Amino acid sequence: MSEGSIQGHVLSPVLEYLEALHAQFADHLEGEVATYIPELAKANGQWFGICLATTDGQIYEVGDSRRPFTIQSISKPFVYAAALEAHGREAVLRKIGVEPSGDAFNAISLDPVSGRPANPMINAGAIAATGMLPGDTPDERYAHLLGSLARYAGHELCVDEAVYVSERETGFRNQAIAFLLRNAGVLEDDPLPTLDLYFQQCSVLVDCRDLAIMAATLAAGGVNPLTGVRALDADHVESVLSMMGSCGMYDFAGEWSLSVGLPAKSGVSGGILATLPGHLGIGVFSPLLDARGNSVRGIAVCRELSQRFGLHLFNVPQTGATVIHRTYSADEVSSNRVRPPAVAAALQRLGRRIRVYELAGALSFGTVEVVVRDVLDKVNTQDFVILDLERVTESDFAAATCSPHSPFA
Amino acid sequence: MSEGSIQGHVLSPVLEYLEALHAQFADHLEGEVATYIPELAKANGQWFGICLATTDGQIYEVGDSRRPFTIQSISKPFVYAAALEAHGREAVLRKIGVEPSGDAFNAISLDPVSGRPANPMINAGAIAATGMLPGDTPDERYAHLLGSLARYAGHELCVDEAVYVSERETGFRNQAIAFLLRNAGVLEDDPLPTLDLYFQQCSVLVDCRDLAIMAATLAAGGVNPLTGVRALDADHVESVLSMMGSCGMYDFAGEWSLSVGLPAKSGVSGGILATLPGHLGIGVFSPLLDARGNSVRGIAVCRELSQRFGLHLFNVPQTGATVIHRTYSADEVSSNRVRPPAVAAALQRLGRRIRVYELAGALSFGTVEVVVRDVLDKVNTQDFVILDLERVTESDFAAATCSPHSPFA
Amino acid sequence: MSEGSIQGHVLSPVLEYLEALHAQFADHLEGEVATYIPELAKANGQWFGICLATTDGQIYEVGDSRRPFTIQSISKPFVYAAALEAHGREAVLRKIGVEPSGDAFNAISLDPVSGRPANPMINAGAIAATGMLPGDTPDERYAHLLGSLARYAGHELCVDEAVYVSERETGFRNQAIAFLLRNAGVLEDDPLPTLDLYFQQCSVLVDCRDLAIMAATLAAGGVNPLTGVRALDADHVESVLSMMGSCGMYDFAGEWSLSVGLPAKSGVSGGILATLPGHLGIGVFSPLLDARGNSVRGIAVCRELSQRFGLHLFNVPQTGATVIHRTYSADEVSSNRVRPPAVAAALQRLGRRIRVYELAGALSFGTVEVVVRDVLDKVNTQDFVILDLERVTESDFAAATCSPHSPFA
Amino acid sequence: MSEGSIQGHVLSPVLEYLEALHAQFADHLEGEVATYIPELAKANGQWFGICLATTDGQIYEVGDSRRPFTIQSISKPFVYAAALEAHGREAVLRKIGVEPSGDAFNAISLDPVSGRPANPMINAGAIAATGMLPGDTPDERYAHLLGSLARYAGHELCVDEAVYVSERETGFRNQAIAFLLRNAGVLEDDPLPTLDLYFQQCSVLVDCRDLAIMAATLAAGGVNPLTGVRALDADHVESVLSMMGSCGMYDFAGEWSLSVGLPAKSGVSGGILATLPGHLGIGVFSPLLDARGNSVRGIAVCRELSQRFGLHLFNVPQTGATVIHRTYSADEVSSNRVRPPAVAAALQRLGRRIRVYELAGALSFGTVEVVVRDVLDKVNTQDFVILDLERVTESDFAAATCSPHSPFA
Repeated sequence: MSEGSIQGHVLSPVLEYLEALHAQFADHLEGEVATYIPELAKANGQWFGICLATTDGQIYEVGDSRRPFTIQSISKPFVYAAALEAHGREAVLRKIGVEPSGDAFNAISLDPVSGRPANPMINAGAIAATGMLPGDTPDERYAHLLGSLARYAGHELCVDEAVYVSERETGFRNQAIAFLLRNAGVLEDDPLPTLDLYFQQCSVLVDCRDLAIMAATLAAGGVNPLTGVRALDADHVESVLSMMGSCGMYDFAGEWSLSVGLPAKSGVSGGILATLPGHLGIGVFSPLLDARGNSVRGIAVCRELSQRFGLHLFNVPQTGATVIHRTYSADEVSSNRVRPPAVAAALQRLGRRIRVYELAGALSFGTVEVVVRDVLDKVNTQDFVILDLERVTESDFAAATCSPHSPFA
Repeated sequence: MSEGSIQGHVLSPVLEYLEALHAQFADHLEGEVATYIPELAKANGQWFGICLATTDGQIYEVGDSRRPFTIQSISKPFVYAAALEAHGREAVLRKIGVEPSGDAFNAISLDPVSGRPANPMINAGAIAATGMLPGDTPDERYAHLLGSLARYAGHELCVDEAVYVSERETGFRNQAIAFLLRNAGVLEDDPLPTLDLYFQQCSVLVDCRDLAIMAATLAAGGVNPLTGVRALDADHVESVLSMMGSCGMYDFAGEWSLSVGLPAKSGVSGGILATLPGHLGIGVFSPLLDARGNSVRGIAVCRELSQRFGLHLFNVPQTGATVIHRTYSADEVSSNRVRPPAVAAALQRLGRRIRVYELAGALSFGTVEVVVRDVLDKVNTQDFVILDLERVTESDFAAATCSPHSPFA
Repeated sequence: MSEGSIQGHVLSPVLEYLEALHAQFADHLEGEVATYIPELAKANGQWFGICLATTDGQIYEVGDSRRPFTIQSISKPFVYAAALEAHGREAVLRKIGVEPSGDAFNAISLDPVSGRPANPMINAGAIAATGMLPGDTPDERYAHLLGSLARYAGHELCVDEAVYVSERETGFRNQAIAFLLRNAGVLEDDPLPTLDLYFQQCSVLVDCRDLAIMAATLAAGGVNPLTGVRALDADHVESVLSMMGSCGMYDFAGEWSLSVGLPAKSGVSGGILATLPGHLGIGVFSPLLDARGNSVRGIAVCRELSQRFGLHLFNVPQTGATVIHRTYSADEVSSNRVRPPAVAAALQRLGRRIRVYELAGALSFGTVEVVVRDVLDKVNTQDFVILDLERVTESDFAAATCSPHSPFA
Repeated sequence: MSEGSIQGHVLSPVLEYLEALHAQFADHLEGEVATYIPELAKANGQWFGICLATTDGQIYEVGDSRRPFTIQSISKPFVYAAALEAHGREAVLRKIGVEPSGDAFNAISLDPVSGRPANPMINAGAIAATGMLPGDTPDERYAHLLGSLARYAGHELCVDEAVYVSERETGFRNQAIAFLLRNAGVLEDDPLPTLDLYFQQCSVLVDCRDLAIMAATLAAGGVNPLTGVRALDADHVESVLSMMGSCGMYDFAGEWSLSVGLPAKSGVSGGILATLPGHLGIGVFSPLLDARGNSVRGIAVCRELSQRFGLHLFNVPQTGATVIHRTYSADEVSSNRVRPPAVAAALQRLGRRIRVYELAGALSFGTVEVVVRDVLDKVNTQDFVILDLERVTESDFAAATCSPHSPFA
């Protein structure tokens, strides 16, 4: 049993589920460890961790969730966020596009006319964003970078020097990209210090838990759910998630959108970070990659989670199957339709600006949402709303959400 | 005042807002009417209609919302849906990709190896989907097509024969695509009858109101909110919306995702259809197009709507700013913390398995949702929940949502 | 021994060489027979013929040089020639580009803006050229096509109806191209009759000997060396050879240029036609193709021929190693330098405006050419030139050229 | 009158023609001076020089033929040649392709799989070739480079330090290319010293006359016609000319091939070098460039020269119009067919193994070539050949070639 599995005397059902999920894929050792730099090639294909973090600060983690690895491309949305915060959206848009390139992970994808990178989730766009980190000196920019990432993770992070040196010594393609960006005027000075910073940013050590918390920070509108510290202006969260949504998974974007449906970012060290806005962050770590450079088990786990909990952004609630068994206002209280009697009596006490909702059957986030919207609609005409929960039988997302041990509480 | 503006004695605030929005852009006559077929060139650049339809059947429409035009590319998601329903996801995936092409609206975008179209929202993918419509004869397939579209719109639709003939006589590029698909084995028989059907599907007459209702049908999980008729298996709604989300706006996909953030589809006759899953459908009609083939005012209206009502998919609720002023259980009722007295008395009547939420400040869907999740969490330990709404002051999406005349009721 | 090997009592050394070349590659059965249409797949991989035709009408042929096959893409330069003759260079340039596409044999390669095909040697450019064949009716254009090809070959040619029907029934890609050309306005009417004519042109039956004579006709400036009939205006020969030189071998153009260095055209039925301007035409037939669609043995044979006989266009003569042993004018005759005495006596008879060249060593076309240029330079100052050949020992191209049995005589 | 115009008391007709050509284009000031590095932008658009050099060492030059400019891309064929000589063709082919890219002058054009540059005439291929220059130290490689170029030009050359520094400081795109080549393993060490050498090679100062002599050295099979020094192994001349022929003029290759038809190379400083193998070299200098980066007047001059003198490689001689008025052997001497009587007498003296060619009409290289081949064919059966030139009236290339003042003598 993994270190993260015991949260108390009773194993939470979410954790129970994650343990089962981890076991299900533990022996699926398809894919290859990245070898483009020697340090990454040292990764053990067995390593496998999963972590969920909710926007209200619950953490569920299994497997190698505390094993450090370099963040690699998962740094991209966060550095893009830093560029947005430092320069504003318009200035950043002038230098970095927002369209999916449809290209492979190592494509250069600069606009043939403007030389502008297609989007901030490919290397060229990420290096351009790194070049927009504020600071007068390399040290200041380095400090800004680490400070920014630390706010998402909730603690100080550090650079794996061996990986950084390895990146710098072998990153010829990225050096090429940096010079192309300089050529196009996207980078304005000597591109090498910016590239150094980019290699450092890729070499920041995180673990699976960090990824989940960073994702949850985005899910929570930019505020770290554990520390309460704001990591990103709320205004820019939408932009960052949009870029993760359309460009975060390279040329797997469409399939990911179809089968997982969450804004996400993957890295060649085997991490995947995914966000369900408003709800939770997911971090998975497994260094075995597919041909597109995405973690094989990372994708599998996210797909399972999305399907199991209905996390897909377009997972439309079955509004047709309402859970509102009956609803009535105080006007109707006197009738014998009201049951139980205690309610009738209570309502008479509360006065006329009141509405009762008898909920029934299987609750889910989607179905309850209809109730919420109805409640919201009555906000000016009612003083009280009473939800009668006695007929509720089960739930879906609610399997986790509604139990007394719910991780999503 | 447009025909759609009067819904009752009192003008709804949504309608009021749409009227203002229509007025704001009425004189913005940028862009060009499509001229690639003579019939489309007859469109009047002044035409301009907007319609919103909620998943519970409210319709708000202004301007030329009842002026018929040919559906063109907006038919694509619906025909893709029909292909999914007829053959299942796996079979459709074998013939039509799911990745954004990053290409312009008239690109061919077939996979260089497989010959498979990049996605179902480009012409090649749409013709491939048309080729998968069920039916033994052209007449049967035509009937299936019109029957399917009719279920989304809620009434019979018909083909504009003049446009259809015009398309057929000038659609050389699409004829080329059809033969390339035949060459790749994506189309299996003579491609010309399929192409005829495609030209017919593009020539189906709709109006802005139809688009909104069709979008709302997707938003409602596949059930037409006006007729209650299921137009699409719930299982496939997610796939259709995913493709609209990543590929619906051609090479404007990234910018659309950033600034509007809703799955959508545009057509060269000037229509745009957008869906907020679970909530509403939007239809806009204005035939003046930008260089990418998207309606200029259509985009502007959708952007305004998204920003005004916070419709962006990644519009993360400000969970930090809770609206829960106070919450207490029946155990705590006896204390003098409970106000007003009527509540105390009522609670004593209702028994101990009860919880009161005093809500306060500005409500929004996002903030209230936190309450709901807390409520859901108590479903097994509480029998009743009372929402005390007396301290609520204002709202956001709620500007519309919470008024007594709310269209979203 | 093949049918072509006996030209007289004594086997010519060229024929002897071709026999050896044929034997050398007879068992090299690499490559695959084209299968894209069923009729082509019936070809026998063993078939193998070679033919050389000089501009003065000598023919050397070995192996299956009289086995008919369909001309396929080798028709392209000749139909381009017909278009040039019918409309003039400017009109043709407006519809068909002249740049190598660098693309594979089945690429579409239309200009993204103009829709103009890259060059006349790819399918798109060839179909465009077919569309420019003169004639008011399909029958007239068909007659023009066959009449034109017949002048190159020196006899009537006919269409293989089975292949034509097979092409027409399966040529979906070419149908696509035809519609794209129609879309771009490169084809101006219904593209299908033009496409039919294109399929017919590809299905014209030729043999290896025909190819060599057609090539020799181009080598001879447009006049068929056997019949003396002009097949093409001299003005257009340069253009046709230029297109063969830069675009005739698809994406093998560069390697062909490097190792063979002759303007050429290949076809998927296994033919290759190559031209040494001013000198000879080559035809090779072997249906086994490489991945680029070129005949494997066809390339090998052309490479050997080019190297053996120094046919490469850039095979620069070794002007440094002159073969002029000595040269003297009549002024110098009286000296004892003149040998043999008979020459001295003869020269005294001929008068003073005379020059003697004593040639020595190994002759080649290149080395002798220096002599010729010197002779030409003396044309106004000398009445006679005497070439003294007694010291000549051997030759190169001259191995064939200079023997009493020379095929190039 | 330019400095080069006086070669003696009588102005040669070639020089006369070049003067007229220079005058014809002197005021054609279309195009733009290259501005990508500040030093190049200082060029004067008026500068205009032309030079021809024959393989036997005649030089004709007009205009600014002695004004130095940096060689830029015209260094590419010569450095490719040096790589071929140092490593052999196979080794070079493994690192640098030979296919035209069809791309613009500043395209990167690396093979998507191998990373190998498309050909040695684009920047990427040229930098790869520079990386193959022999030498253990940068100084040795620099010395090898300058030594090699000097042998072509016939004198020492030097680097324009200001241009070199300017290239190095602004050549971001080339730096990018160098890192991409390093990434692909085409460059094997630190790419920066190689890139420095490349910038130096581009900054070598030449003039128009140098270009013509360098071209003539290639035309003469690798031997400098002025110094007699071999600059390149004869074996590699063919390869270098082939690459110039197919790739030397960027995406203008096809049009150049059509209208000029000579292997050539252009540079952004305004030079064009072209070679007629076996005959002559052309150098033109005019810094005004077209959109493709080729000298506008350079192209115009080469086109005129090619058309005027029939230099196009595919300018097929009109062999049909033979210039052999009559030919007879010694056997036929006794007949009264022989005229003049002196010939008859002379022939009787010379013996029987003799053949007389009476030439007549207009000579050209092409027509005389038929005579040569016939002579070659008789080499084993005749001891003497007599060319009777009395009936020769005029010539074509021969306008220059055959006059007593011929530059081509």
